[in-house]
Amino acid sequence: MWSLCPLLLLTTSANAFVVPQQQRPLLTSLEATRTIGIFGGGTVGGGIVEILTKKSAYFKELTGSDLVVKTICVRDATKQRDFAIPEGCTVTDKYDDILTDPDIDMVVEVMGGTTDAKNIVFSSLKSGKDVVTANKALIAMYLPEIEETLANMDKPVQFRYEAAVCGGIPVIRSFQSDFVGDEVSMISGIINGCTNFMLTEMDQFGRTYDEALTEASRLGYAEADPTLDVGGFDARSKLKILMRLGFGVEVPEDKIACRGITDLTKLDFDYAKMMGGTIKLLGVAERVEEGKITAFVSPCYLTKEEPLASVSGATNAIEVSSRNLQSSTYIGQGAGRYPTANSCINDIIALAKGDKSPMPFNPLDKVTEYVDDYSSTFYIRIRYRDGLGITRQVGEACEKVGVSIHSILQNPITRRDDAAFVLITEKVPLQAVKEACKAMEEFDWCNGLPFYMPVISENWVEKMSS
Amino acid sequence: MWSLCPLLLLTTSANAFVVPQQQRPLLTSLEATRTIGIFGGGTVGGGIVEILTKKSAYFKELTGSDLVVKTICVRDATKQRDFAIPEGCTVTDKYDDILTDPDIDMVVEVMGGTTDAKNIVFSSLKSGKDVVTANKALIAMYLPEIEETLANMDKPVQFRYEAAVCGGIPVIRSFQSDFVGDEVSMISGIINGCTNFMLTEMDQFGRTYDEALTEASRLGYAEADPTLDVGGFDARSKLKILMRLGFGVEVPEDKIACRGITDLTKLDFDYAKMMGGTIKLLGVAERVEEGKITAFVSPCYLTKEEPLASVSGATNAIEVSSRNLQSSTYIGQGAGRYPTANSCINDIIALAKGDKSPMPFNPLDKVTEYVDDYSSTFYIRIRYRDGLGITRQVGEACEKVGVSIHSILQNPITRRDDAAFVLITEKVPLQAVKEACKAMEEFDWCNGLPFYMPVISENWVEKMSS
Repeated sequence: MWSLCPLLLLTTSANAFVVPQQQRPLLTSLEATRTIGIFGGGTVGGGIVEILTKKSAYFKELTGSDLVVKTICVRDATKQRDFAIPEGCTVTDKYDDILTDPDIDMVVEVMGGTTDAKNIVFSSLKSGKDVVTANKALIAMYLPEIEETLANMDKPVQFRYEAAVCGGIPVIRSFQSDFVGDEVSMISGIINGCTNFMLTEMDQFGRTYDEALTEASRLGYAEADPTLDVGGFDARSKLKILMRLGFGVEVPEDKIACRGITDLTKLDFDYAKMMGGTIKLLGVAERVEEGKITAFVSPCYLTKEEPLASVSGATNAIEVSSRNLQSSTYIGQGAGRYPTANSCINDIIALAKGDKSPMPFNPLDKVTEYVDDYSSTFYIRIRYRDGLGITRQVGEACEKVGVSIHSILQNPITRRDDAAFVLITEKVPLQAVKEACKAMEEFDWCNGLPFYMPVISENWVEKMSS
Repeated sequence: MWSLCPLLLLTTSANAFVVPQQQRPLLTSLEATRTIGIFGGGTVGGGIVEILTKKSAYFKELTGSDLVVKTICVRDATKQRDFAIPEGCTVTDKYDDILTDPDIDMVVEVMGGTTDAKNIVFSSLKSGKDVVTANKALIAMYLPEIEETLANMDKPVQFRYEAAVCGGIPVIRSFQSDFVGDEVSMISGIINGCTNFMLTEMDQFGRTYDEALTEASRLGYAEADPTLDVGGFDARSKLKILMRLGFGVEVPEDKIACRGITDLTKLDFDYAKMMGGTIKLLGVAERVEEGKITAFVSPCYLTKEEPLASVSGATNAIEVSSRNLQSSTYIGQGAGRYPTANSCINDIIALAKGDKSPMPFNPLDKVTEYVDDYSSTFYIRIRYRDGLGITRQVGEACEKVGVSIHSILQNPITRRDDAAFVLITEKVPLQAVKEACKAMEEFDWCNGLPFYMPVISENWVEKMSS
């Protein structure tokens, strides 16, 4: 169908011809239209329709096009919607009503899931429809396949997924546009709102883990299965996507070291407070040396000067260290109807304006390998039954594997049979810390595997690199 | 000249024809080239050339084009440069060597100033050359004229100025792309690195104003004339640009209320510390009610929970309140060779990729008017010679103009002839605070016009709206 498209001038062809550049006055008289089909009429879909309706006149002026939502496909077409269906728009439960409609040139996939949504996305792209998605799981699983499909199409289509990672923070576009001349050395983020909310509740308001989770669920911050949040898996999916964008490195999700917040205890928050810092669940990826990148999702102790330390509640934040910009931090809402819909709208407008998705998204770095090791200062919390010789044994166990101890913290002992103390190490390798913890677990006096987490403080990057 | 350009299909014309969409394989065989002329071979110009040289292969893959720096125009062509001149590139001191060169299709203006730079920018645009600039003063003064010129061109050219505001933070692009579906209610920023550095020195390290300024100058943070920084004028220029982008409102720079940091004393930092917060020089613009926008550059007292409170040194930060995203914060380097060059590179790459600058940049809101009034909690510091009746007189003066007092702070009095105390008001109008200060100045005991500044705390936005 007729659409605005970039022209390649065939200078080598005998049929070369000159065409006029885009002339703005003609745009308005052309009455260009983008016809949109939306899969999903829930939280995000509804938000998108609301914004498209409310700002239709402005969007027409901005892009030169009418943006018409022709069809919305939902699971149950009879269900009452909490947003106004645009005039002339059909609500259906049949995928093909969108997929095989030749009028529809843009598909918005906000239904979620990785089976039907996957087929819908690929089918749309292959039939020449531009696609905007908010589907994090789909991107985490299939981005390479999607890019492959896009690269091999006769006629290019556009594909955007800003809303897939940290809903309202335009992090995808940022990695695609703001670091083109730069070199990213580290990405570190609070990228799961549920756990950050819970940690804030536990840290600032003294709530227990269970109380925090109940409240998070009540407020709609937790996934249907909260394990995805509290186990760190949601954060890991997003981190994988960010690693691909920021470093051009593709690492299988299940290969990335992942620990959630379930091992944290009130004790850890007490110690954090004592040290003047806080505990956050971070997704971190960093170039530890040439050709080697490490990444993990883990609770981390942050000193209070760290930009991420002051990010509380369900808010997300991403900090990027890079050669030109040094340090950049983005803080915003990672989820919810309007933040997520806002990002989808950004993509829809970019498509309507004719902006091309970066192609290739990021030339893949096939040389760099993932390593599950890095050096850092660590916090190690050891629970024990009080007795003689603990200090010596701890000292020996650490020394044996090269874990140099910076300091030892001890809260007043209230229960001799279940006390705890904390080691802060010097900068040591993660593997050494794991070995030290395993060794200490063997001691009679030790109450369970010691819990460790990296300490993030100023000069973290210098501390991390070996 | 042959170049990639968007094609408008003339469906209404008898000569309508189909053209193939961009085909990626052909791109590489076309060997498209963007030929660049740079005005300015100093800090930023050198950074741009370095990055273009270092990443030329990557940029070619990313954009499909070679990016060739053909000519660099400087004040003194004989002067030694601190970067490598690319092979084949000419260094000249003649503007016309770039302006009248038909091969050059992109001009990068990083020479600064508002006279020659202005002519260069307009001349380039009118002769069909795309322009990238880092020139904040030029944008603050001439953006409407530039937009007018762009709107009236027969053949469109592209114009980008990411580096003009907060060097390394992509705030221009952010306002142009991330808020299209949103409604901005407030912009608040630390947008002058020199003063933020000085305030950090005074607040965290107890330095005097003069010590802090000396250090700022030594580190290259201060303008040649530091008054532009410490008087708040540099911040005001940037705020004006952000107001246009964020609200679509054009306000003459000299109309925007502006106070710098020169009235702050050690006393204020003592009180800030006592209250657990800090003092920042902020540029703020906010919709106070339908049709009315206020804006100012002023020292502000921030509680420690505020995202901007933890931004120290020469770092910049911008916080945006908007309907969909609620609150978004960007923190990064506002100046320096590589942050600023990075933003220019972002623009250059966007142009080379064929992304179109938003057109119009932001439909202007001609209804909203600027008002120099808003309601807020205020900090008022009053210096006095100790005596009888001060409390009553202060109370009367405030009550008379409707300034309700929330609390009074008093440090131990060390000098009876030159002491100070602080009022924290309830939410009251700025005008009332000004009147109260003027009234109090008249009292015998008062040592100079009392100093006031807005208090920024959570719910600031709710507190601001009348």
